[in-house]
Amino acid sequence: MIRITYSNITRDLIGANGLTEDDLLAIDSAKIQDMFLKKSYPELAFLDLPKQDISEIKKIGEYARQFENFIVLGIGGSALGPRSIVEALSPFHNYLRKPRVFIYDNVDPLTLKKILEIIDLDKSLINVISKSGSTAETAASFMVLWQRLKDLGLSPQRHMVITTDPERGNLRKIVRDFHLRSLSIHPNVVGRYSVLSPVGLLTAEVVGIDCRDMLEGASEIGKKCLNFEVMENPALLFASALYQFNVLKKLNITVMLPYSDRLKAFSEWFCQLWAESLGKDGKGLIPYPSVGTTDQHSQLQAWMEGPKSFVVVFIAIEDYGVDIEIPVVFNEIEGLSYLSNHSLAELIKIEQEATEIALSKSGKPCITIQMPKIDAYHLGQLFHLFSIATAMAGFLFGVNPFNQPGVEEGKDLTYGMMGKRGYEKKIEEFLSYRKNKNRFVI
Amino acid sequence: MIRITYSNITRDLIGANGLTEDDLLAIDSAKIQDMFLKKSYPELAFLDLPKQDISEIKKIGEYARQFENFIVLGIGGSALGPRSIVEALSPFHNYLRKPRVFIYDNVDPLTLKKILEIIDLDKSLINVISKSGSTAETAASFMVLWQRLKDLGLSPQRHMVITTDPERGNLRKIVRDFHLRSLSIHPNVVGRYSVLSPVGLLTAEVVGIDCRDMLEGASEIGKKCLNFEVMENPALLFASALYQFNVLKKLNITVMLPYSDRLKAFSEWFCQLWAESLGKDGKGLIPYPSVGTTDQHSQLQAWMEGPKSFVVVFIAIEDYGVDIEIPVVFNEIEGLSYLSNHSLAELIKIEQEATEIALSKSGKPCITIQMPKIDAYHLGQLFHLFSIATAMAGFLFGVNPFNQPGVEEGKDLTYGMMGKRGYEKKIEEFLSYRKNKNRFVI
Repeated sequence: MIRITYSNITRDLIGANGLTEDDLLAIDSAKIQDMFLKKSYPELAFLDLPKQDISEIKKIGEYARQFENFIVLGIGGSALGPRSIVEALSPFHNYLRKPRVFIYDNVDPLTLKKILEIIDLDKSLINVISKSGSTAETAASFMVLWQRLKDLGLSPQRHMVITTDPERGNLRKIVRDFHLRSLSIHPNVVGRYSVLSPVGLLTAEVVGIDCRDMLEGASEIGKKCLNFEVMENPALLFASALYQFNVLKKLNITVMLPYSDRLKAFSEWFCQLWAESLGKDGKGLIPYPSVGTTDQHSQLQAWMEGPKSFVVVFIAIEDYGVDIEIPVVFNEIEGLSYLSNHSLAELIKIEQEATEIALSKSGKPCITIQMPKIDAYHLGQLFHLFSIATAMAGFLFGVNPFNQPGVEEGKDLTYGMMGKRGYEKKIEEFLSYRKNKNRFVI
Repeated sequence: MIRITYSNITRDLIGANGLTEDDLLAIDSAKIQDMFLKKSYPELAFLDLPKQDISEIKKIGEYARQFENFIVLGIGGSALGPRSIVEALSPFHNYLRKPRVFIYDNVDPLTLKKILEIIDLDKSLINVISKSGSTAETAASFMVLWQRLKDLGLSPQRHMVITTDPERGNLRKIVRDFHLRSLSIHPNVVGRYSVLSPVGLLTAEVVGIDCRDMLEGASEIGKKCLNFEVMENPALLFASALYQFNVLKKLNITVMLPYSDRLKAFSEWFCQLWAESLGKDGKGLIPYPSVGTTDQHSQLQAWMEGPKSFVVVFIAIEDYGVDIEIPVVFNEIEGLSYLSNHSLAELIKIEQEATEIALSKSGKPCITIQMPKIDAYHLGQLFHLFSIATAMAGFLFGVNPFNQPGVEEGKDLTYGMMGKRGYEKKIEEFLSYRKNKNRFVI
């Protein structure tokens, strides 16, 4: 089980910048409990993902493993979930194992061209992921690949799996009309809370991970997170701490800092979840994606001495699974020889703790998640812990953690310019803006 | 030449949140001019990188291209520079071309183990990059690979190139003692300003880029940036705008948002430069790494409706080099058919502008860099522009943009625990902290 160390947020350890136990308890946990138990937002359906029936995922996973390439078309949660699973659980996957995984989460034409240069579509399975079935970026690449298959005489029935709403949307209609393979995302599970749905789990199966292990980990931590005693619930305590640092200390940046290259994509997954859920009504905590030790040589300076805005969330790995000894070489050079007879795992762990101490000593709050090892079970725990903590933080801030109203305006302008019916008025707005913006160019 | 559109920072376009021309001119540009022209910090030596002699880089680049793998050991600027060059100028490089490039910028033991599984050291050249020659992470992996070569009967003289200070440090001593191939980093060019030195340029040559093109681009924009009329100098105007948004409007997050997968690593390069240079004395602007369209589905919600902290810097690509048409399929489904007869390049460009408009309409400042295409010449311009702008911003904030005093404490604690002589006192501090931190774990 992952454990969380909260010592370095306390006044005892970091002084006046820290929180007291009273601060942590001063939230309205009864309200949170009520909202969770009554599922006052239907989107809390993600809580039940650990108990889902995975037989269809298993079946399609087995089907997928006969291909040489597995291409995910999706954006936002539909890409970050799968990517964080592959990077964490099968690092350097495409060099070492098949099917190779390509995640196309943009509309950059060069990226898609390169993927099509590298793979043979005949030996590829394409997983199109969009809950709504109308995401413009995913729709565009889906249409391109649909036509490519047709041009090559390949059938979508063989080469595509659609992951979408069970009943509604364009993609579900196409699944029905063309009898395509498909997986369903529960109607109330929204994109950024969907990693433990077929959105992430199919990719897990494709790269050889038993998705049951992820769900088991999630289920275990889920129990702890639905106990509503603040001081015993790691998710509620996380939400309370970050909320109180914002309200009482005006800290508004949450750094996610795992000490493993394998969790870099996880860090980005967290950032989407946290930003899109909480950043509304002028409120919110800005997440910051990071990785240690690397960012000690990039961002640490600003966390230590820049604006007082940061709470740093470490993920410390207890067992890296492998280790490499640093040999006895250059014995005569003192600036190197001190490293001999230590190991890389020892060095990275000491650097993690040293960074934590340095921050704490200068009064900067940190939270440290102890992860026994990076495997499906514990990754499932991370996903579920932060999904729950994010929803709880949203409720504390009084915002809806499941919508994203702020992105609609950009979408509408795009629809207008792309000629979607009903958005004609946006064209004029777009063009008049374009004229104005060219006034001040150097 | 790249051009910068500043319209969307003005009051005319975004209303009360915007700056006036007077605000932009209210900086002490004479002081900046004086500091630059007199090189009041010797570290401004990076300004002269475009005129450097590249013959040795060319020679070693040619030597390197006979290998199947090129492994960079470096961290911070020594890794982000090379990585951003490879990703921008040779996307999907390792799938398509040789030598494959592996950048090991951490001490995660699993990452190094996987790299050693994938490559054959006999067919590999290792580029060790550390200006000081004493970076712990780089030293550790260097020592490991030195011993591996020895164990395999391979010679460092054939398989290593060291990029370091011309005179000082452990690595230079080893170069001399063992007659290794080496490149020199100018003694006054510090890590995060070194991408246009041999640090980045050797990797450019290795992946088949003529590094002269990068320097030529840098040289061209350098001329514009050393004209000290605020309104005609893209770097000074950038620095002035970001500084004034911080001082006058309390905005402290600078989002770097290129609309191309190829510039994702560039965005991280910028973030190191900006964070480590400016984040000190309680001041500073927090950089945020991003990529469009992807982050419209991740971070945009928070930029639109979260805390008022952001200035968004777009990089808009004019010519993606390739394009892919969106075909006429699913004509009967209105939610998809509007995309037909457009192209991916068209869609990504419209989304970029739509996002810019949406932000501007809601009073959020943006700056847009128009990049004609992603090639060595224009990438060199981006690197040089932002290096100069960062130094200028540092001078405006009154901080030293070339040091990083805030990371020393963590280093010293690590040295103590790793047994480096002179750091014995840090051990006790480390251990007593470790005891305290285990008090509050759930």
